[in-house]
Amino acid sequence: MNNNDFSCGCGKYPLLQKIKNPAQVKELTAEEQVLLANELRQCIINTVSKGGGHLAPSLGVVELTIALFKSFDFDRDRLVWDVGHQAYAHKILTGRYEKFHTLRHKEGISGFPRMSESPYDHFGVGHSSTSISAALGMAVASDLDGDGRNCVAVIGDGSMTAGQAFEGLNQAGGMNRKMVVVLNDNEMSISTNVGALSAFLSRKLSHPIINRFKKDFESLLKQIPKIGDDLALYAKRGEDSFKSFFTPGMLFESLDFTYLGPINGHNIADLVDVFEQVKKIDSPVLVHVLTTKGKGYAPAEDNPTYFHGVGSFEPETGRAKKFKGGLPSYTEVFGKTLCKLAAKDEKIIAITAAMPEGTGTNSFREQFPDRFVDVGICEQHAVTFAAGLATMGYKPAVAIYSTFLQRSYDQVVHDVCLQNLNVNFFLDRGGLVGADGATHHGVFDMSYLRHIPHLVFMAPKDESELARMVATAIDFNGPAAVRYPRGVGIGAVLEENPSILEIGEGELLRDGFDGAIIAIGSRVWPAVEAVEELDEEHGKAVAVFNARFIKPLPEKQILDLASRFKKILIVEENAKAGGFSSAVLEVLADNDALAGLTVKRLGIPDEFIEHGTQQELRTEIGLDTAGMKKAMLELLGEDQ
Amino acid sequence: MNNNDFSCGCGKYPLLQKIKNPAQVKELTAEEQVLLANELRQCIINTVSKGGGHLAPSLGVVELTIALFKSFDFDRDRLVWDVGHQAYAHKILTGRYEKFHTLRHKEGISGFPRMSESPYDHFGVGHSSTSISAALGMAVASDLDGDGRNCVAVIGDGSMTAGQAFEGLNQAGGMNRKMVVVLNDNEMSISTNVGALSAFLSRKLSHPIINRFKKDFESLLKQIPKIGDDLALYAKRGEDSFKSFFTPGMLFESLDFTYLGPINGHNIADLVDVFEQVKKIDSPVLVHVLTTKGKGYAPAEDNPTYFHGVGSFEPETGRAKKFKGGLPSYTEVFGKTLCKLAAKDEKIIAITAAMPEGTGTNSFREQFPDRFVDVGICEQHAVTFAAGLATMGYKPAVAIYSTFLQRSYDQVVHDVCLQNLNVNFFLDRGGLVGADGATHHGVFDMSYLRHIPHLVFMAPKDESELARMVATAIDFNGPAAVRYPRGVGIGAVLEENPSILEIGEGELLRDGFDGAIIAIGSRVWPAVEAVEELDEEHGKAVAVFNARFIKPLPEKQILDLASRFKKILIVEENAKAGGFSSAVLEVLADNDALAGLTVKRLGIPDEFIEHGTQQELRTEIGLDTAGMKKAMLELLGEDQ
Repeated sequence: MNNNDFSCGCGKYPLLQKIKNPAQVKELTAEEQVLLANELRQCIINTVSKGGGHLAPSLGVVELTIALFKSFDFDRDRLVWDVGHQAYAHKILTGRYEKFHTLRHKEGISGFPRMSESPYDHFGVGHSSTSISAALGMAVASDLDGDGRNCVAVIGDGSMTAGQAFEGLNQAGGMNRKMVVVLNDNEMSISTNVGALSAFLSRKLSHPIINRFKKDFESLLKQIPKIGDDLALYAKRGEDSFKSFFTPGMLFESLDFTYLGPINGHNIADLVDVFEQVKKIDSPVLVHVLTTKGKGYAPAEDNPTYFHGVGSFEPETGRAKKFKGGLPSYTEVFGKTLCKLAAKDEKIIAITAAMPEGTGTNSFREQFPDRFVDVGICEQHAVTFAAGLATMGYKPAVAIYSTFLQRSYDQVVHDVCLQNLNVNFFLDRGGLVGADGATHHGVFDMSYLRHIPHLVFMAPKDESELARMVATAIDFNGPAAVRYPRGVGIGAVLEENPSILEIGEGELLRDGFDGAIIAIGSRVWPAVEAVEELDEEHGKAVAVFNARFIKPLPEKQILDLASRFKKILIVEENAKAGGFSSAVLEVLADNDALAGLTVKRLGIPDEFIEHGTQQELRTEIGLDTAGMKKAMLELLGEDQ
Repeated sequence: MNNNDFSCGCGKYPLLQKIKNPAQVKELTAEEQVLLANELRQCIINTVSKGGGHLAPSLGVVELTIALFKSFDFDRDRLVWDVGHQAYAHKILTGRYEKFHTLRHKEGISGFPRMSESPYDHFGVGHSSTSISAALGMAVASDLDGDGRNCVAVIGDGSMTAGQAFEGLNQAGGMNRKMVVVLNDNEMSISTNVGALSAFLSRKLSHPIINRFKKDFESLLKQIPKIGDDLALYAKRGEDSFKSFFTPGMLFESLDFTYLGPINGHNIADLVDVFEQVKKIDSPVLVHVLTTKGKGYAPAEDNPTYFHGVGSFEPETGRAKKFKGGLPSYTEVFGKTLCKLAAKDEKIIAITAAMPEGTGTNSFREQFPDRFVDVGICEQHAVTFAAGLATMGYKPAVAIYSTFLQRSYDQVVHDVCLQNLNVNFFLDRGGLVGADGATHHGVFDMSYLRHIPHLVFMAPKDESELARMVATAIDFNGPAAVRYPRGVGIGAVLEENPSILEIGEGELLRDGFDGAIIAIGSRVWPAVEAVEELDEEHGKAVAVFNARFIKPLPEKQILDLASRFKKILIVEENAKAGGFSSAVLEVLADNDALAGLTVKRLGIPDEFIEHGTQQELRTEIGLDTAGMKKAMLELLGEDQ
């Protein structure tokens, strides 16, 4: 697409306006399909440029989406997009064009497929590598029902590195049910791919012996009834295609999949040809599709990592519209602090699961390439790998988003904490994350980690305390975790050499008479604000205690507060069930300190929270300053 | 071994008595090594016959263990046994012969490698498929230290089906570090293996075209410097070895491992030959070793699934010594109830992760083979696969031990509960499991599941209530979980057609005046006993409330209790942190019902619990009738 038209307006997308459901895609001519691809790209670029979103993945699969809709009947057949950040074209073509401008806005279209949003979203996604498992479940159901539906999983080569994808492939191959896996190979996860599989997929075998096999293999392929000829035909297409075909095919064939490819993922006609063949095969098929991340939009093709998930930008140039203010993000402060510590301590190793940029470990990679490990989308392996390093005296720093560490819960328990190893977890995106919504909020970590023996678990009130907690975790000889929010800090001044915190000790930020707020993490400063307004507006003197530690809790200090205040408000940006406030209640009960207390808890209620800005969601839930003020006034029995 | 001598006595094991550390194994002659293998087998059979344990896996790797100790220097080199139930010979040869008779007894030798038990247990294990990740961590550490240690992971073909093993292989291949993976291929996990990988490993390729490749491949191998010739040599050994070599090799070579094998795992000399070669290779190597599970003990070779983990037996015959009493196990009651329901409801599908016998779904497999799925050791995939089935109107029953569902925490949150799908989880081995110890106790499930929105979560007081809960879970249209203990029931009479329970409703089993016990699951009847003794011995009238539901809690009933009793004891066989009692405190706090209450909590303290019998552990922790009596008396301010 050379002449992008980024101006909005219904008149710009005549085809999109007409298409209300996937069946209408089938009726388009080949020429119209190309026009449709163009409109989809423009609509996606235009929409994402305004409010941000997952641009590059969605641009990469525009033709693939059209070809799938052309070949399959998704009123009957099933389609599971892995991760789902590439499903914008799918959304637009399944009756959501009119609402697409609300993408990732509160009450608007979700950034991921959601079963609750459309009957064409057959499975909700967000975390990677679930698609093959889910599609296989659907295939087995269809087999039991005897209705012969096609069940299709579309999965990127990045997602293929996660163990669950292999589990799904292995089971599907073993069961030998009719199902289709489309491997969307763009040689990227969010960042560049790692691991043997990635090297393997892109490997061009050059050893002369391989060429001797070529002829034999082709004749073998031709002996396979029905698909053999086509297979050999596809294998011949394009430059070097046989060699590329030969190697990845081996891997998937070894798991009993019929392998077809590689196919140019931007040629609709070729894709449709293959899918028509695929429908005739009654056993597992893997279609290897080569796509370009960011396809058709030069800035995204040039920098697919930046445009993987992007904020608003000028569509003509790709330049970011909103430049970040001067305040550093928590991510940056973490990354810089870890580098500072690593410069003095060569035992520190940084580990990321395919997200060097997202976790702020990219600067570590530059400064200490030998001590940086990107394991790929493998959170389970990342944690046990770190445990192995720790047995040898190293201090691994595992940087994973709160929501993705859910994948490693067992490894945190069984490999790290049970053995009391010196592994440090840095959980970015703790709490509400905003536009990514229900699958991505990091609101369970305090509940799923705090019951694990041996773990020290902290959450900072601001970026300066984050730096101190990073230093404290590394200094502590045992498993430690720090969780911090998405977004920028409050402007707190960083210590030149972040000082170590006393384990299990919080701080009283404001003293009072009428009641106390016990807060943790990002909710501490809003609590101070609330208390200041309560003082000014209502003449109430309310104490604020920053607990700092979810585990071990500052028990003595909390019991002291309970002895001095009868009205206590506990605030956390985590599920109230089993979270921080729950831990405080346990301490009070176990020390017979409940009598006479009135305790109120603010946190995430027992439901999944949808998308919206962090501020919108906090306000709605009552986790902002106003919400705390209101809750405290109620607790004090005051009218407002 | 045809002439087993199973009588015990130090005189029987002259070599074992001498060997205090692995270095001494190196000094043995080839003849002595064979004698040592014989002694090890006798010692293992003899010990396990008395107190039970993992017999068949340990018998299968006796020669492999000796060969590893002969070739490597595990004072420097590192060794990680996957799962670890095959490590008995390793334990005996690393200074634990004298204490080996205490295997799995309280304060005795653990059934699994533990770093705290021996400097030769380089990594603690228990759950499957962590070994490659851990050994790779050690290899990277060794590389950074520049000390060139050999880091060896020994992993079974069953464990190889779990995604984490693939993640480890993929990363190891990609990093290209010196490390060794020994694939212990006995064609079994606990039960027979499933999945494409398993079929692949044992596949004998017979297509004529393969034979045409053979010569070319052999000449290719010979062109690889150093190891080529040996590789081709190994490939030639044994009947059919080339064909077996050719196929599995492809898979691992595709992940950039050098593949050697298959090797007869019961020929020490052959194994040592290969390991000596392996030590010279500075990149990842996979050694494919063929072993027989239960090797050298006819009853175990004949029935390796039964002898995988076994109770005490007559060593001469293999017959179980203690026949189970007339009481059915919880496992059996679950299995039978599910079959009964499935006979009337064809939407019920049973799913197990490689444990049909352990989870009691083997009877389901027999009765409804089309609706039974063994996914292999793939708990993650099992849960998402079930979610896929549920989207199509099926009612999957996922039967997984409490401790192993830890692997699927993210999938339970993200794929099942977020989408509010009708997936039912049956968590066997909830609570303390006894001899398997710290890695296997199911004492976290109430903490890691109860904060997940939409989930209904129950625990039965006895086997009759289990049957009702199974029926209730299946009947409930949404995600539901039932957790029940290891062991036999109490003899409660089962309902012919188990009746459905009211969601979120508990039952008052005994009323009282002086205080109340709120109990859940297996702790309910012991609480009733405690209360009866308190009545008889101390004239105290204490109520007992069976909560039945961890989620949703029977709030109204609990608040009613709190209004009537000032002294409340809460009892659960789960971590006190974030568990059931923590949920009760939340309800009390959120309804301003704390004032004037004294609450005491009995549960698992904030530490990992070691092995011992269930009764020993419950007594030690104070979770038995006596412990509850004592706690209640303290609460009532009574001297005892």
